[in-house]
Amino acid sequence: MIATNIGTNELNHLTFAGMDTVDLAKEYGTPVYLMDEARIRENVRTYRKALSEAFSGRADIFYAGKACAFTELYRILTEEGAGIDVVSRGELFTARKAGYPVNKACFHGNNKTDEDLRCAVSSGVGYICVDSMDELLALEKICAEMSERQAILIRVTPGIDPHTYEAVSTGKVDSKFGNAIATGQAEEIIRKALTMRHLNLKGIHCHVGSQVFAEDVFERAADVMLRFMADMREKTGRTLEVLDLGGGYGVRYTEDDPVLSIPEKIREVAAAVKAACDELDFPVPYIYLEPGRSIVADAGMTLYTVGSVKRIPGYRSYVSVDGGMSDNPRYALYRSRYTVFSAGEVEARETERFSVVGRLCESGDILQENVPLPCDIRRGDTLAVCTTGAYNYAMASLYNRLPRPPIVMLRDGTSRVVVRRETLANVADLDV
Amino acid sequence: MIATNIGTNELNHLTFAGMDTVDLAKEYGTPVYLMDEARIRENVRTYRKALSEAFSGRADIFYAGKACAFTELYRILTEEGAGIDVVSRGELFTARKAGYPVNKACFHGNNKTDEDLRCAVSSGVGYICVDSMDELLALEKICAEMSERQAILIRVTPGIDPHTYEAVSTGKVDSKFGNAIATGQAEEIIRKALTMRHLNLKGIHCHVGSQVFAEDVFERAADVMLRFMADMREKTGRTLEVLDLGGGYGVRYTEDDPVLSIPEKIREVAAAVKAACDELDFPVPYIYLEPGRSIVADAGMTLYTVGSVKRIPGYRSYVSVDGGMSDNPRYALYRSRYTVFSAGEVEARETERFSVVGRLCESGDILQENVPLPCDIRRGDTLAVCTTGAYNYAMASLYNRLPRPPIVMLRDGTSRVVVRRETLANVADLDV
Repeated sequence: MIATNIGTNELNHLTFAGMDTVDLAKEYGTPVYLMDEARIRENVRTYRKALSEAFSGRADIFYAGKACAFTELYRILTEEGAGIDVVSRGELFTARKAGYPVNKACFHGNNKTDEDLRCAVSSGVGYICVDSMDELLALEKICAEMSERQAILIRVTPGIDPHTYEAVSTGKVDSKFGNAIATGQAEEIIRKALTMRHLNLKGIHCHVGSQVFAEDVFERAADVMLRFMADMREKTGRTLEVLDLGGGYGVRYTEDDPVLSIPEKIREVAAAVKAACDELDFPVPYIYLEPGRSIVADAGMTLYTVGSVKRIPGYRSYVSVDGGMSDNPRYALYRSRYTVFSAGEVEARETERFSVVGRLCESGDILQENVPLPCDIRRGDTLAVCTTGAYNYAMASLYNRLPRPPIVMLRDGTSRVVVRRETLANVADLDV
Repeated sequence: MIATNIGTNELNHLTFAGMDTVDLAKEYGTPVYLMDEARIRENVRTYRKALSEAFSGRADIFYAGKACAFTELYRILTEEGAGIDVVSRGELFTARKAGYPVNKACFHGNNKTDEDLRCAVSSGVGYICVDSMDELLALEKICAEMSERQAILIRVTPGIDPHTYEAVSTGKVDSKFGNAIATGQAEEIIRKALTMRHLNLKGIHCHVGSQVFAEDVFERAADVMLRFMADMREKTGRTLEVLDLGGGYGVRYTEDDPVLSIPEKIREVAAAVKAACDELDFPVPYIYLEPGRSIVADAGMTLYTVGSVKRIPGYRSYVSVDGGMSDNPRYALYRSRYTVFSAGEVEARETERFSVVGRLCESGDILQENVPLPCDIRRGDTLAVCTTGAYNYAMASLYNRLPRPPIVMLRDGTSRVVVRRETLANVADLDV
């Protein structure tokens, strides 16, 4: 199976977190997002334990809420003691609603409004990661007005191309994010930040991309960033103490994707950090990683109900489900691959290939192409799309005025709604 | 200017529907969607008048709400007397909330659930456009249970490729939508529909694509569909009386796009319909068109505030705004082109080219590339993206947990909120 929390039971039904998905579809209706609480906690612990071991306790994660954010998830992260990366007041609001201690949060983003900055400072977020000179000046002014001194990181672009899909590759020099080392702009903003009376520059941040499997991307990023930190020490006399290497480790969407060992990857990063620090005679900084996808992706699954099966002789066969690009726009956006099962008939005697498409009125509303499914699949059957914990609920729209599905959290053989299904009335709630 | 409702005033500010957009940005905050009520009404009237004239009163539109749907818009359509195309219970709910007489609605979509069908029948929608054999059987069963007889259309794929972008091209044989004439499946489902006691087959529907500028796409579609109707008359003895040719006329996003004259296009379609009917000795059916984009696109504009201006020497220059792919995913999805202005300085002495990017934490979050903007553009300036009335609010997500912008309707120099700005609290409303 694509993930260890997915299986099959004696009825030949698909199970997720040990529970029968056909039963869950009946109980909660479809479309529905399922999440496996144990897997979320396990993923968080794997990162935190490996980081702590590799960096002698001087490392942690900022969970990247852009992958998935809702109140109960922040409650879980509160219990786990993990840091979080927020990119909007919406994420910060949700974390605070959950009782999350936001002094462990880092506020990111390429364009924070004055309202964002005021809200972040007054909420007491641990760090604001400053993305541009414009933002640096705005933040200094706001902190002066508020008589606050704010700890900041500076986002730096190390110029590393992780060779992933362009839309999710962010560490190159030509990026809307950050300040490039290569152009001298990173140095310029750091020099400027050091003159700011209300800002306390603690370190630097980079993010090299998403869904990264390549061998040594993080090691190269760490090396580039540490050399830059040593260079800044020499030029300014200031030793930065925090290095935030961002997120981006790949997750397994299909059998073709490799299985990454996070502890192993972290040990490799630690070795690169220590080697560079030794060579540069630079103190090993406090290290942050910002996993998002690799915390929640394999903790998620989406269930749909089949509405029609259409075979066009000489062309393709289509299975339409009751959701689509409104609850999962990733195929439409990036041609993302997913593993799809007929939840009620996992092992089928005969299969054929289908395009699994959504119900939205748009030809591009496709969930996956070339999916082997049982030949006898029919209206009313349950389909499961695996590994949907990241960037599905988070990117959901109300396109075609379809209400967003609920999130049902699974734990120890029990299930509970943690995000309610949007109602038809909700869809028009904001209409005057 | 790209549209006649866009202009410049004595302050060199951009105007929309005669109003100063810099003032509107100040009054309502950004991001904000503006809509021009007069333009919506004018577009509706242009279609309806041209259709009525060309088809001696036996033609109308079904406005395609998937382009944009909210309560006030359905109130306007109620006043205008136009028909509507709904594709979900969410759209139907909104129309009913507005007091729209849903006997003038046609319910579309490639995958209607049993709940959709029951809701459509019990609401009394004028037509249900049946997309597949599975749906036909389900609808007959539901109507039998409800002791209702429902008027239906059948969606037929005429096999015409309008040579537009693949994701929005739906008239080809290989499509998730409809039943192909070429494969015999259209005939098969019509024969079946005629045996259904609770379904009253009134006609057929096709949709050849979106953003269509090509010369004779609708004429060819009409010809193919009428030949099929004549063929069905011969084979079954039943003369279908409704021909719904769908939507798809292109709108002008940039100066490079042509200006389509809708009355002229409709006269050409009418000529093709009459020629085919004469040749086939077939009575001219009642004609529907389903414009969506061409009713609302040029009635919309989005205003943003600039957050940072970033020039990367040797690479590109970026202007970041306070919205992005969450309120307009069309560049991310289709590389759609838009016209962008600096609202406070429309005519600039010196301009340079910028990538206009959003605030979302994703490299693909781009609104437009290569936009000429004033060299002195800076944080706090207002940017306007034109022609955003279609598929912007309709496709808006809460990605990055960004609340959705409000819609402000402009009329006769006054403005009013018709969809409220989503609040931070709203973003977590469904969280348990």
